[in-house]
Amino acid sequence: MNKNNITEAIKAKQERVKSDYDLCDNFHLSEEEKQSIGELSQVKNYKKGTVLLREGEYPTTCYLILKGLVRQYYLVDGEEKTIFFFAEDDSITSSTNANQRISSKFYLECIEDCELSQMNYENELELYRRIPRIEKLCRLSLEEKLANYQEMFAQFMVSSPEERYKNLMITRPDLLNRVPQYQLASYLGVKPESLSRIRKRIAAQG
Amino acid sequence: MNKNNITEAIKAKQERVKSDYDLCDNFHLSEEEKQSIGELSQVKNYKKGTVLLREGEYPTTCYLILKGLVRQYYLVDGEEKTIFFFAEDDSITSSTNANQRISSKFYLECIEDCELSQMNYENELELYRRIPRIEKLCRLSLEEKLANYQEMFAQFMVSSPEERYKNLMITRPDLLNRVPQYQLASYLGVKPESLSRIRKRIAAQG
Repeated sequence: MNKNNITEAIKAKQERVKSDYDLCDNFHLSEEEKQSIGELSQVKNYKKGTVLLREGEYPTTCYLILKGLVRQYYLVDGEEKTIFFFAEDDSITSSTNANQRISSKFYLECIEDCELSQMNYENELELYRRIPRIEKLCRLSLEEKLANYQEMFAQFMVSSPEERYKNLMITRPDLLNRVPQYQLASYLGVKPESLSRIRKRIAAQG
Repeated sequence: MNKNNITEAIKAKQERVKSDYDLCDNFHLSEEEKQSIGELSQVKNYKKGTVLLREGEYPTTCYLILKGLVRQYYLVDGEEKTIFFFAEDDSITSSTNANQRISSKFYLECIEDCELSQMNYENELELYRRIPRIEKLCRLSLEEKLANYQEMFAQFMVSSPEERYKNLMITRPDLLNRVPQYQLASYLGVKPESLSRIRKRIAAQG
């Protein structure tokens, strides 16, 4: 594997995750099942700046992003460390939902006006009860997400900030215009000044 | 959150993952169900140095470590980048098992003599068919693993190599003696010479 291959691998994964959603589409939900999902979830609009989850709170809700951008970050010694941006069609599993014994260590913030389909934990369990094969889909989707995080982690370990930025230009070009620079810098693991320099260098290279 | 809190959070998570295994113990498997698991899995011994999975191969097997240590690493531009060590009671999900359309990007290597309980993909599916609630357990366990990776990633982003080493002394002291120094260095994101210096500095601090 070389660094370019990692980029390709991540793109392939992204396509594969999409294909899991297709699998969901091809899942042939009956009208009754679709009605169940509609009953158990709700679509809500959130203004830019809304914090969906704070450090210390107990997560109770999972989300599917219909429109907008949500940032996941940790606050470490007063400094925000962004680790992920969720965009359209991404789902956000509050991993600690499961038995709610542990409070969140991170924040979830809408960094654009968002339209989210959301479901609380009780309804999630009820959904699995009504449509057990949905739980299989969730397991598959979690396996994909885990693989994505592992590769993201490996890639972060092996790349310079400039390489990370170039990689982002290929894998998630939408983020470059949608995300404030200081958040993008934190995601790349650099100070905003360094990000500025990286952008200038890349622009100079054409 | 401060850096110490991250360490505490990871320890708490580790305990929580253990409690999921307890949940598994308290799962009240019937004799028939235990027999199914026995039929569908097998215990195998591997010599130190055995590579269980290579980049480019299609993963077909999941493992539970009964004894030994397995290293997960990427080979990037010829350099090994270790991202995880699996020890006793850890399970290794070959995340790309699910529909086997994507080959592995990483390696799995026994770095001690290992005793593993293993199950191939077909048997895994058969197990879910025979005991559907096992799939729920897998979903819960995957949620935990995902949360662990997210925190590991966040922690890697915010820590210096020396802080990472100190953190390891608290969260996984067993690794420090069991893992060769060059692999430990790669896991901490430094060259072996730097790891040497870090150890000397910490020893001098008492």
